[in-house]
Amino acid sequence: MSISPFPTISAPAGGVPATSAPWNRQQHSQMPSHRYADVHARVDVPLVDRTWPMRRLTEAPLWVPVDLRDGNQALAEPMDPVRKRRFFELMVTMGYKEIEVGYPSSSQTDHDFVRQLADTDLAPSDVTIVVFTPARRDLIERTVESIRGIRNPVVIHMYTATAPIWRDVVLGRDRDQLKDLILRGADDVQRCADGLPNVRFEFSPEVFNLTEPDFALEICDAVTTLWDASPDRPVILNLPATVEIATPNVYADQIEYMHRHLSRRDSVILSVHPHNDRGTGIACAELAVLAGAQRVEGCLFGNGERTGNVDIVTLALNMHAQGIDPMIDFSDIDEIRRIVEDCNRLELHPRHPYVGDLVHTAFSGTHQDAIRKGFAEHGERAMSEGRSAREIAWRVPYLPIDPADIGRSYDAVIRVNSQSGKGGIAYLLETEFGMRLPRRLEIDLARRVQQHADAHGDEVSAETLREIFDDAYLMPMPSITAEPPTSALDIVSIHRTSVDADGTVGALTLVEFRDGTETRWVAGRSADEQEATSNALRRAGRIAGSPRKHIGNTADAAAQN
Amino acid sequence: MSISPFPTISAPAGGVPATSAPWNRQQHSQMPSHRYADVHARVDVPLVDRTWPMRRLTEAPLWVPVDLRDGNQALAEPMDPVRKRRFFELMVTMGYKEIEVGYPSSSQTDHDFVRQLADTDLAPSDVTIVVFTPARRDLIERTVESIRGIRNPVVIHMYTATAPIWRDVVLGRDRDQLKDLILRGADDVQRCADGLPNVRFEFSPEVFNLTEPDFALEICDAVTTLWDASPDRPVILNLPATVEIATPNVYADQIEYMHRHLSRRDSVILSVHPHNDRGTGIACAELAVLAGAQRVEGCLFGNGERTGNVDIVTLALNMHAQGIDPMIDFSDIDEIRRIVEDCNRLELHPRHPYVGDLVHTAFSGTHQDAIRKGFAEHGERAMSEGRSAREIAWRVPYLPIDPADIGRSYDAVIRVNSQSGKGGIAYLLETEFGMRLPRRLEIDLARRVQQHADAHGDEVSAETLREIFDDAYLMPMPSITAEPPTSALDIVSIHRTSVDADGTVGALTLVEFRDGTETRWVAGRSADEQEATSNALRRAGRIAGSPRKHIGNTADAAAQN
Repeated sequence: MSISPFPTISAPAGGVPATSAPWNRQQHSQMPSHRYADVHARVDVPLVDRTWPMRRLTEAPLWVPVDLRDGNQALAEPMDPVRKRRFFELMVTMGYKEIEVGYPSSSQTDHDFVRQLADTDLAPSDVTIVVFTPARRDLIERTVESIRGIRNPVVIHMYTATAPIWRDVVLGRDRDQLKDLILRGADDVQRCADGLPNVRFEFSPEVFNLTEPDFALEICDAVTTLWDASPDRPVILNLPATVEIATPNVYADQIEYMHRHLSRRDSVILSVHPHNDRGTGIACAELAVLAGAQRVEGCLFGNGERTGNVDIVTLALNMHAQGIDPMIDFSDIDEIRRIVEDCNRLELHPRHPYVGDLVHTAFSGTHQDAIRKGFAEHGERAMSEGRSAREIAWRVPYLPIDPADIGRSYDAVIRVNSQSGKGGIAYLLETEFGMRLPRRLEIDLARRVQQHADAHGDEVSAETLREIFDDAYLMPMPSITAEPPTSALDIVSIHRTSVDADGTVGALTLVEFRDGTETRWVAGRSADEQEATSNALRRAGRIAGSPRKHIGNTADAAAQN
Repeated sequence: MSISPFPTISAPAGGVPATSAPWNRQQHSQMPSHRYADVHARVDVPLVDRTWPMRRLTEAPLWVPVDLRDGNQALAEPMDPVRKRRFFELMVTMGYKEIEVGYPSSSQTDHDFVRQLADTDLAPSDVTIVVFTPARRDLIERTVESIRGIRNPVVIHMYTATAPIWRDVVLGRDRDQLKDLILRGADDVQRCADGLPNVRFEFSPEVFNLTEPDFALEICDAVTTLWDASPDRPVILNLPATVEIATPNVYADQIEYMHRHLSRRDSVILSVHPHNDRGTGIACAELAVLAGAQRVEGCLFGNGERTGNVDIVTLALNMHAQGIDPMIDFSDIDEIRRIVEDCNRLELHPRHPYVGDLVHTAFSGTHQDAIRKGFAEHGERAMSEGRSAREIAWRVPYLPIDPADIGRSYDAVIRVNSQSGKGGIAYLLETEFGMRLPRRLEIDLARRVQQHADAHGDEVSAETLREIFDDAYLMPMPSITAEPPTSALDIVSIHRTSVDADGTVGALTLVEFRDGTETRWVAGRSADEQEATSNALRRAGRIAGSPRKHIGNTADAAAQN
């Protein structure tokens, strides 16, 4: 065995399992996976004759951003009052109608922010304010004090962890003792908020997804009974996947079980609160909505403790991309992103769905070619339907939505590097400089660009592309001589195209001619079309010498098509 | 209406739907969602009496990283030969046994890398090499030329887009014409590779998830027939979700349909290739494996065009976290990450599952308290079972896996800011300085830390915590005088704890005493335990004046508990 180039990294050393197929030579690793168990060994997953895989998303749930509470708790530097206020104003503008604003009994900043909502008109009257509290009387009292005087609808959100490990290791209570604690808390909430007609209640059995289903049901039903949930004053039951533990279909089964077995179902708003430890938070939320959830708590772009809360921007734009009104506006997603990044002091990843710098971009040649054809079809269809390109059905390959829907330009859609082909190059030349090249010249140019990219390794900007073009076909014109054309000159075609470089509208003439057995190109540019053609023809044959320096050779370029 | 603080952001202006519940005041947005359609309007989704929601993950699929091809194509700066080689060596070390290495007919770098594998022993003999080609004879010929002489098993991977939009807009072919093109390509592959016994074949109907199921099946069966797939020489059918278009259960339905209807099923390796446009790539892959997929193509940490390919590191660690050997080693995930970041020149997000800087961290007080208790239980259980803490079952709340499994230390698990409570503070003091505080002193200290964090806004490092502690309880000792103890001194308790600050092992004595109606604390530190106690007692009462400057007051701290 040779010495590993990575001495700190263990390699699988457990042999190939006897049952493996010949095409699978993977070996047992040295990972201590025996320390963990499948979800079915950790909690009883209710067996349901599930219906959610047959259902379809048809409308947006109630979105409840918890950035100012849950998200804020997970930041190395929590938001100061200015940032909190700005984030709140952003969410109101975008259309969120229920916003969790803080944990007023735990932090002075949170308390002061809730008071600011009572004392100002920062929150429009149709926005519901949610405040978060543990099930402890003194903290409940301080929470209720903080909301006095708010004219908006208010939700008091009480949570208690209910899963066995939390009961045993953290809380030191058995099921009955924990139920007592929760019902005492619920009772405290009700008594403290007595006489506040704008207040409704929410309960979260934290770590719901690791809690025995019968216990979760028992607790939830006891709480809705105590709070006397009614269709006029429904209670929110929020069922968190506090730490993801299974594939998302299991969470959907758990939610559908609750949806079908909860008492007072018409008086309950069934809510979910997924996290993203397994990278499946989005899927958990979507499948949970199929399974009966009506309300989704999460954060903009998925901030939150550890891997974050579910990203309610991606969820909403996923609905948009399937023809469902998300009920939230993302008309300028870059501005939304800038504000959120500034408030959280955390940047988004370039591959973040819908908003990342690279997600509306194609580098690969085949993708670029398809996108270019798709844009052309799109423009033609808009024309033939006599409607705006911004309004007609979107069918451009590889782009899930029209970037313009969310305020993105097409500038960055196609970017060129050594993996790109002629489609991307042609697209850039056309969109940046108004140049449409004939196909054989595209091939010739693509070969030159690829040589450049292979040699330099980096991305080819529109400016570099233009330089390569000019260098190849538009060499500084030699002084005109009186010599006659060479005898080999045989013009195959002449193409004229408009050109708009550096803001100057002009004319570009491309002359294709045969020189012995080879097909070559030259170009002429001028403000005037006729002069551009003369310039090209002069280069093509009116001048002796040096044609090899500034004309292309398509013989070996064909293979690059 | 007041003027919006965000003039570029549209706000929902379409009114509240008549059917909305009173608790949901969301309004119709201005997003042009009518431009998009549900998956069921775009492609016929086969109705199956699906079995995948009842199945469980039991073993790792064959993982096939495509970083060197698909991932590489999506980088602004594709990998140079040195980076490509280093990435390949990393994947081999981690345990990957089938690796797609390039698109040799499209790029000189890719071609040269494949030749390097033929000419060196970079690839161990049990590693299968995959090369990618479109269905075009000249490119197939160049691809096969590139692999001649490789001693490893080789897979030639041919792809063609099969979805209607691609047929109509990009390729200009109907179903029959496209089938012809694919079968001609498959035939070319077979004839070119004739006489190479180490070569197997793979076919990808690109955009499978938008292709009519009967057409996908017809094409796949025709290809496996032409290639004469057999159990001894199985054909890989790779079914990409090239652009995500639906909730992940729909992809699972599509895969199960193929799994159950493909001919020569025992001679087919069913493979999936999800992307992540909707943020559900992980879920698609997992549900597809439940639905019958045996092989997963993706990238380490999810690089790839737009939002990326599915992240095969998260997928594998998700299996680990459910007790299934991932067959890949992640023993030093930070080193793996550094190499991948260097090769791709793209950084990972701090909330990326398992590997992000923040994902094994808790800032919130309740989480910290639970984690601390979980660590204590873990240590006690290891002791009582007489086994290593690294080997016993993992049950610590809020941490899906033991960070040590992937080479992470516990240092960053608990971090303190204004949202933190005494649990986190106590944890830091104990792990960083070996100090265990009595509960009432924890409360007193937490109040001081929260005041500091509220005033400064930023994270509280272990060093700052120590300064706050020292400042409060360990003020520089005044000169000793001969004055007698004050009459109010009434020692309640004395605690001794070891202390290891700045590498110095020493003793810390904490004295709790009553001063009139208040309970206060002082501390004494020394290399020697007796001297530490004397120092504390001197501060507590042997010296006149200034006790208020360096002792705490628990009366108003109790409420902070």
